Amino acid sequence: MKSRAAIAWEAGKPLEIAEIDVEGPKAGEVLVQIKATSVCHTDAFTLSGADPEGNFPAVLGHEGAGVVQEVGEGVTSLKPGDHVIPLYTAECGQCKFCLSGKTNLCSSVRATQGKGVMPDGTSRFSKDGQSLHHYMGCSTFSEYTVLPEVSLAKVSSEAPLDKICLLGCGVTTGIGAVMNTAKVEPGATVAVFGLGAIGLAVIQGAQMAKASRIIAIDVNPDKFDLARQFGATDFVNPKDYSDPIQQVIVDLTDGGVDYSFECIGNVNVMRSALECCHKGWGESIIIGVAGAGEEISTRPFQLVTGRVWKGSAFGGVKGRSELPSYVDDYMNGKLKIDEFVTQDMAFEEINEAFELLHAGKSIRTVLHY
Amino acid sequence: MKSRAAIAWEAGKPLEIAEIDVEGPKAGEVLVQIKATSVCHTDAFTLSGADPEGNFPAVLGHEGAGVVQEVGEGVTSLKPGDHVIPLYTAECGQCKFCLSGKTNLCSSVRATQGKGVMPDGTSRFSKDGQSLHHYMGCSTFSEYTVLPEVSLAKVSSEAPLDKICLLGCGVTTGIGAVMNTAKVEPGATVAVFGLGAIGLAVIQGAQMAKASRIIAIDVNPDKFDLARQFGATDFVNPKDYSDPIQQVIVDLTDGGVDYSFECIGNVNVMRSALECCHKGWGESIIIGVAGAGEEISTRPFQLVTGRVWKGSAFGGVKGRSELPSYVDDYMNGKLKIDEFVTQDMAFEEINEAFELLHAGKSIRTVLHY
Repeated sequence: MKSRAAIAWEAGKPLEIAEIDVEGPKAGEVLVQIKATSVCHTDAFTLSGADPEGNFPAVLGHEGAGVVQEVGEGVTSLKPGDHVIPLYTAECGQCKFCLSGKTNLCSSVRATQGKGVMPDGTSRFSKDGQSLHHYMGCSTFSEYTVLPEVSLAKVSSEAPLDKICLLGCGVTTGIGAVMNTAKVEPGATVAVFGLGAIGLAVIQGAQMAKASRIIAIDVNPDKFDLARQFGATDFVNPKDYSDPIQQVIVDLTDGGVDYSFECIGNVNVMRSALECCHKGWGESIIIGVAGAGEEISTRPFQLVTGRVWKGSAFGGVKGRSELPSYVDDYMNGKLKIDEFVTQDMAFEEINEAFELLHAGKSIRTVLHY
Repeated sequence: MKSRAAIAWEAGKPLEIAEIDVEGPKAGEVLVQIKATSVCHTDAFTLSGADPEGNFPAVLGHEGAGVVQEVGEGVTSLKPGDHVIPLYTAECGQCKFCLSGKTNLCSSVRATQGKGVMPDGTSRFSKDGQSLHHYMGCSTFSEYTVLPEVSLAKVSSEAPLDKICLLGCGVTTGIGAVMNTAKVEPGATVAVFGLGAIGLAVIQGAQMAKASRIIAIDVNPDKFDLARQFGATDFVNPKDYSDPIQQVIVDLTDGGVDYSFECIGNVNVMRSALECCHKGWGESIIIGVAGAGEEISTRPFQLVTGRVWKGSAFGGVKGRSELPSYVDDYMNGKLKIDEFVTQDMAFEEINEAFELLHAGKSIRTVLHY
């Protein structure tokens, strides 16, 4: 079938809006009509060429929501008409990782997903006979896309797809990092570095977890108003201080915070985030994705004296098991999503959405097919 | 009063056995007659001059056991005749740290302890009128030493002091790191880097925790026999492999271990210990003390994909609360200590004990006063 799509032909170039060919689902696969998608920094990272694992040409996009159109042989958990959120972190329920009870990093489709192909090693996308790579197992920048059954979370059909698409990455990642990875407890103090969608979602998660103090940190003070809406209590612009930012936070909090979150992908900020944690128990969670080959460092004394360094991918959330309740929480008013949407646009304006993201002028632009 | 002692006059020089003057205990302090002490790498580290916080001249030693001789004003929890283990990590029960329930890093005497003096800012030790520094709040290299009440764990008077002195540092640190910091669960796989007293104690702790596989790693294969006695199941000499040791361990364990422990103080090994952990859940615990200014580093991806980097000081053990039960476990045969003692010597042979430690020819030499 034919599908509207945005093609990333090569690194560093704008996407081309074009009609592509999409093959139907094979065994264990599902054809989904994406209704809305957003643009995340990870898409921009890959498009820039900085991602060493980026494959071109490709159909990018991993934060979306849609409706099942057709299922392949052997698919039992989904049927046409089901509303779904694509998952770049699958959940098969049967691999060593899923069975461990300790992680959401399912290994079932990881190897092929990383190569930009379906589990059988081939692509369902082509343009004029040229094969196009899949991306993060999702490729939500095509109106019609094919995913493994294990990479789709079935959610309530009453939820607006142009809002819950944000649960495909940013919002879930931030809230999950607070709830699943850090397990922030009531009364805790929290520092959040970087106030993009993920940082704001961390702030929301910290408020849901009843943190007593939520310190929002960004070099762009335009972000502070939105951070306040999500529950931040303190606002720090590192440019306003001559001391290292970790020292500023330690001084503000009588010794450091209980939990910190790095939501940027800057290895120097990752160090600051660790070192602003309280001796004896402070935990720092890395969420941001650093550039290829970059390394974090600190003195081991920081850890020997009780700080803990962790990371989080998709907030430690098992998508198929947990996303339905995130959607329900949104519908019940317990979870804010609307506030993340700073722009709505037609799908064809996708390159403009990337520009807004780069310029720091959007939190999330939702693209409507 | 007069006391036999070993004086560290300056960095890099042998200790001088001499008679020193010891002042009686002031308010909140306790005079203890040390019956046995051992030599730990931390004493050697400070004596070498590599410890930036080392104070000279000083009475070193922090792994000992003795009997209370006299208590100062206001001391209520101890009386003459009580058997005690000196604690370099005090436990006051009242500071922010003790009350947190999250750490053993009591802050009550930390500031003065670090400066080599008692909480009132002065020393109880002198030689011919020249003041000598205390060390780690213990100074077990003096037959008579003075400690704050909060720095002494009262233990069973039936236990042999020349064995349980090892609970003052190495044995407790290793077992506590397994039980309190890592919380190793039955069936887990464990890698232990460095087979000195702490590494061997980690192995013992892992066996007590019913780990399924305990991999002992050292460049000195002479240590493997003792490691086997404590419960190690696999033995790896990095010199036998051309691959990086983390890759060797990952290959041995189908993806990495559940827990790793660095018991050396080498920042490169700390990285290997982290990176040999299993994706999704592996935790690495730093126990070794690195040289001044040295830093650990890794790619943040290691953490984002689920590994956790932690550290442990005195095994996370609250000495006054927990050491009595360690002593009882030893007396009940649940905890091995005798096997750590490779040499017994007279206190006056202390410089020889340091040499044996440096040469890798002893695990612990116990010095008898």
